[in-house]
Amino acid sequence: MLIEKINDPKDLKQLHLEQLPQLAEEIRTFLIEKLSMTGGHLAPNLGVVELTLILHYLYDSPNDKIIFDVGHQSYVHKILTGRMDRFDTLRTFKGLCGFVKRSESEHDVWEAGHSSTSLSAAMGMALARDFKGENNKVIAVIGDGALTGGMALEALNHMGHEKRDLIVVLNDNEMSIAPNVGALHNYLGKIRSDKHYQKAKDEFQQFLNKIPAIGGKLAKTAERLKDSLKYMVVSGMLFEELGLTYLGPVDGHDIEKLEGIFQQANNVSGPVLVHVLTTKGKGYQPAEADSHKWHGITPYKIESGQLLKAVGPPMYTEIFSQALIELAEQDERIVAVTPAMPGGSGLVKFGQLFPGRMIDVGIAEQHAATMSAALAMEGLKPVFAVYSTFLQRAYDQVVHDICRQNLNVIFAIDRAGFVGADGETHHGVYDIAFLRHVPNLVLMMPKDENELRNMMKTAVDYNEGPIAVRYPRVNGRGVELDPQMSTIPIGSWEKLREGESAVIITQGPMIQVAEEAADLLKRDGLSVQIVNARFIKPMDEEMLLKLAAENPHIIVLEEGSIMGGLGSAVLEFYAQRGIDGLSIRLIGIPDIFVEHGSIKEQRQEIGLTPEHVASQVFSLVSGRLQNVKRQRG
Amino acid sequence: MLIEKINDPKDLKQLHLEQLPQLAEEIRTFLIEKLSMTGGHLAPNLGVVELTLILHYLYDSPNDKIIFDVGHQSYVHKILTGRMDRFDTLRTFKGLCGFVKRSESEHDVWEAGHSSTSLSAAMGMALARDFKGENNKVIAVIGDGALTGGMALEALNHMGHEKRDLIVVLNDNEMSIAPNVGALHNYLGKIRSDKHYQKAKDEFQQFLNKIPAIGGKLAKTAERLKDSLKYMVVSGMLFEELGLTYLGPVDGHDIEKLEGIFQQANNVSGPVLVHVLTTKGKGYQPAEADSHKWHGITPYKIESGQLLKAVGPPMYTEIFSQALIELAEQDERIVAVTPAMPGGSGLVKFGQLFPGRMIDVGIAEQHAATMSAALAMEGLKPVFAVYSTFLQRAYDQVVHDICRQNLNVIFAIDRAGFVGADGETHHGVYDIAFLRHVPNLVLMMPKDENELRNMMKTAVDYNEGPIAVRYPRVNGRGVELDPQMSTIPIGSWEKLREGESAVIITQGPMIQVAEEAADLLKRDGLSVQIVNARFIKPMDEEMLLKLAAENPHIIVLEEGSIMGGLGSAVLEFYAQRGIDGLSIRLIGIPDIFVEHGSIKEQRQEIGLTPEHVASQVFSLVSGRLQNVKRQRG
Repeated sequence: MLIEKINDPKDLKQLHLEQLPQLAEEIRTFLIEKLSMTGGHLAPNLGVVELTLILHYLYDSPNDKIIFDVGHQSYVHKILTGRMDRFDTLRTFKGLCGFVKRSESEHDVWEAGHSSTSLSAAMGMALARDFKGENNKVIAVIGDGALTGGMALEALNHMGHEKRDLIVVLNDNEMSIAPNVGALHNYLGKIRSDKHYQKAKDEFQQFLNKIPAIGGKLAKTAERLKDSLKYMVVSGMLFEELGLTYLGPVDGHDIEKLEGIFQQANNVSGPVLVHVLTTKGKGYQPAEADSHKWHGITPYKIESGQLLKAVGPPMYTEIFSQALIELAEQDERIVAVTPAMPGGSGLVKFGQLFPGRMIDVGIAEQHAATMSAALAMEGLKPVFAVYSTFLQRAYDQVVHDICRQNLNVIFAIDRAGFVGADGETHHGVYDIAFLRHVPNLVLMMPKDENELRNMMKTAVDYNEGPIAVRYPRVNGRGVELDPQMSTIPIGSWEKLREGESAVIITQGPMIQVAEEAADLLKRDGLSVQIVNARFIKPMDEEMLLKLAAENPHIIVLEEGSIMGGLGSAVLEFYAQRGIDGLSIRLIGIPDIFVEHGSIKEQRQEIGLTPEHVASQVFSLVSGRLQNVKRQRG
Repeated sequence: MLIEKINDPKDLKQLHLEQLPQLAEEIRTFLIEKLSMTGGHLAPNLGVVELTLILHYLYDSPNDKIIFDVGHQSYVHKILTGRMDRFDTLRTFKGLCGFVKRSESEHDVWEAGHSSTSLSAAMGMALARDFKGENNKVIAVIGDGALTGGMALEALNHMGHEKRDLIVVLNDNEMSIAPNVGALHNYLGKIRSDKHYQKAKDEFQQFLNKIPAIGGKLAKTAERLKDSLKYMVVSGMLFEELGLTYLGPVDGHDIEKLEGIFQQANNVSGPVLVHVLTTKGKGYQPAEADSHKWHGITPYKIESGQLLKAVGPPMYTEIFSQALIELAEQDERIVAVTPAMPGGSGLVKFGQLFPGRMIDVGIAEQHAATMSAALAMEGLKPVFAVYSTFLQRAYDQVVHDICRQNLNVIFAIDRAGFVGADGETHHGVYDIAFLRHVPNLVLMMPKDENELRNMMKTAVDYNEGPIAVRYPRVNGRGVELDPQMSTIPIGSWEKLREGESAVIITQGPMIQVAEEAADLLKRDGLSVQIVNARFIKPMDEEMLLKLAAENPHIIVLEEGSIMGGLGSAVLEFYAQRGIDGLSIRLIGIPDIFVEHGSIKEQRQEIGLTPEHVASQVFSLVSGRLQNVKRQRG
């Protein structure tokens, strides 16, 4: 077994090029076996086995910088850099991260999780290298899907302008890029990357630059010659026009061809794009056959390819999916907008039923948001389905285009709260903090799946401006669904449980935590009121006034950033109304990034548990906490 | 005078095409005269006189949708749509807005202020039109600078995919786009947009599509033929590769040629890009000679082109500029990063002194932020100079790339607070709310220009992670500058004034307001303590504890969103520490968008005045406000 000998990229360099295909096979077998037990991003990693091998074979990591866009395709890289023995802990609490992680290895030079950042990273590293007078290589590996993200395009534009030496590896598995990129010619690519040709081209360019001074007809002839030359030698015109040298396409599973093209790339000065064709899921038949399904998966049976899923009530995503379909049947104005996430956002069936009413814009959250603004302006009801963490990409568009113009855009914000195994890059824990201060926006969160359906109905029937519903990446509570969806009065909260000792204001899955905490507190003789703060904005001011009049002990419990969150909103309200003398405590996510693990572990890590909540309530009510008043009294 | 007859685009359509040049001249004279008194975006509007005329001459606004990117080039449009008589009030409080404004006219179909949104808007409007089965035209006018913004590129990519009928007008005044766009050929453009040619091209394409089935050598020949054809007919390959038809370039000041090219555009199906060459400042010599300076200007003398500027201490921007230069002289790690705003951000001189250390990425805030992360990772000290409002575009990059990786990026956040005449799209009133909850970030605001210098020094000497200093678009206070910059302990506040009756916690220009309020309150026998909360994060916890122990009456005063702002941070702190019994009141910007006017008027509008602050403090201290405690007692 070759794989057992590789603990560092240096070990890899001891092998002959001809041995790499065997190593590739061993890595595939390893991944298929390990991930059948842990789950993870199988298909993307099976696709980049040879590519990752050749990069570590040819380049000198970490001196040369290998940057993975998103980073979920870094498993092979992890195997080659001494982390093979940690794959049993993949994506578990305190275990191996599913993305690139600087604290794990010196070979992990850039972290991500969100897409399209690698080209900006490469640009910065190339500039810094030149600034310091060093000469390391900088290589960014980016998928064709990620390349449509606006910041990647911004970076491409800048690369072409700066002309720094760097290599962009376009890992093209035909996920979403425009078809013309797929129509490029192997043959022309070969000529262009030839070193002698480059020199000839440069000399010809210099010659041409002198011609226009002559003016008149000759200048035009020179221009035509220039274009003619361009035609003769250029494929990948899109990248060439942006100022990058284009090489490829090359079969990304052919080690020898890969070696050849990267040797050519090393001879090109300035930014070069190497177009590598790969097959997602390569080498595992079920994953090759349905690479979307096998992008990120739960544990599975290797032989049958059967995914092992936990049984439980439907996820909130599924409930959203079904509700949207029912609403769209009744309301022709509804269109769904997705930034390349129809699967994750539960829009696949919607797209099948209403093909003309589903707009997938590719990885392009900014465009998705502002385009939705325009759709709303023209009388449609766009439902922008987006993960909370990816909505961060469209913050300005939410403020400047949607809310400032007060347009009827509906946001379906999925993955609100902790997300589990994807970890710190993917949590939806800031959306309340970054949306709450934006004027005109209504922001809701349901207590269960039935309320989610009613909130979708509420959103569709609301015509006063933008409205958002956020929901978590968990199963519903298994409650019965009303036969008909109904609207909920905007800004109305509801009391779920009466109590005398204290009030817990909370929302979403934290309601269950509050209920269990209240049950625990009964043993201490305390009765706790529980309020479903289903509207984060606007809040139920009448109820807030009533609560304050009834009970000075208020706990706000939320699975989101304490800073700027719901608790903050409650504090602001009472301060603005001049209501003093309350004892308000906030339980939520403190000022840290919480790492990967299960959602349960993440909640435990920061105290979003019935036990912790109960102890906080008990402390508050029993007056054990010091307060200034007493100190001063 | 033709101009006096035009109150609506319908009136314009009564003119002969040959009369438009005269009208163009009259409009120029009008703009030069009016803006000499009001100031405003002169050069951009002088550049689009003929373009705007031809659009309103040929198209049927508002049925046809004319969308202006950014919108500061909409003055001519405003003149043609019945708002000529309001130009005396341009950019003043309750006066004519300097951008497109839907409440002003039915012809204003899309509002902006930030760049690069128009293509997404056009895409949404075209989709909505087709969805509704209507047949209006959709036309987006975008500058070459704005086209480099990531969301515009996302939209281009989507346009090429969707193939909807729409027209992108590339208003190319050579501000920042790559030079290859400027090298396109008039001649080839003409042929390509010819209707007969289009038909021939389509037929040839169909013919070619049948060839590959034959396979072998013939297929390759067909491919070469296809490419050959492409070469023969295509300029603007970048846009063609993205799936748009390219027309142009055309002289944007030649009415007849403009008419011709838009007639051609109307005959093309699918998305078409019309490349229009214009001269910023056209027709006014000083503005033509220095279009950057004349982009947005104060009132001026028409004859001499002399700008009339108010006298006063240097603006904070200038102080930042000088401090950065001094620091960069001593510290070679410092590089400056700007998203196409070297002028506005005070980096022009820096760029002249340190040409290799200033990186202008074009309008590309996302890339600028993440590239800065990579520069910091490699040991440099990037100073990302950006307006508060434009930093909204890079929120996710701040969270995901800079703060999550805890990198030493310095943010110089200009235009924090109200910005005056640019109005609601440009205020820097959300940055505290969208930055405060991001872990690892230090956030500062200086009380005066000397403290800004010291904060810059503090930022450069800080090596624990990202650090930001925000400063307003106003003159400094005229204080003396220390001979040497010095660092300020992270998280330290300072008492500026002692007092017994109440505490005002505040920052930046609001300190002066607090001081004047305190002076007013002296007459009522109240003495007010004033605290300079120069660190928004981390706060001075020791001082907060002391303040609470000394005085229960605390006012937090800020020129930013109340929701999620500094006041919110103070409330959270006391709640988390279990300190009850305080009476805290927040004065800041409520949940609305504040329109254009002077900064003074904007502050008055929402009560950021000494009088209002004094009355709030008086009410609080004299106990006139009701509180629950009393109600319950």
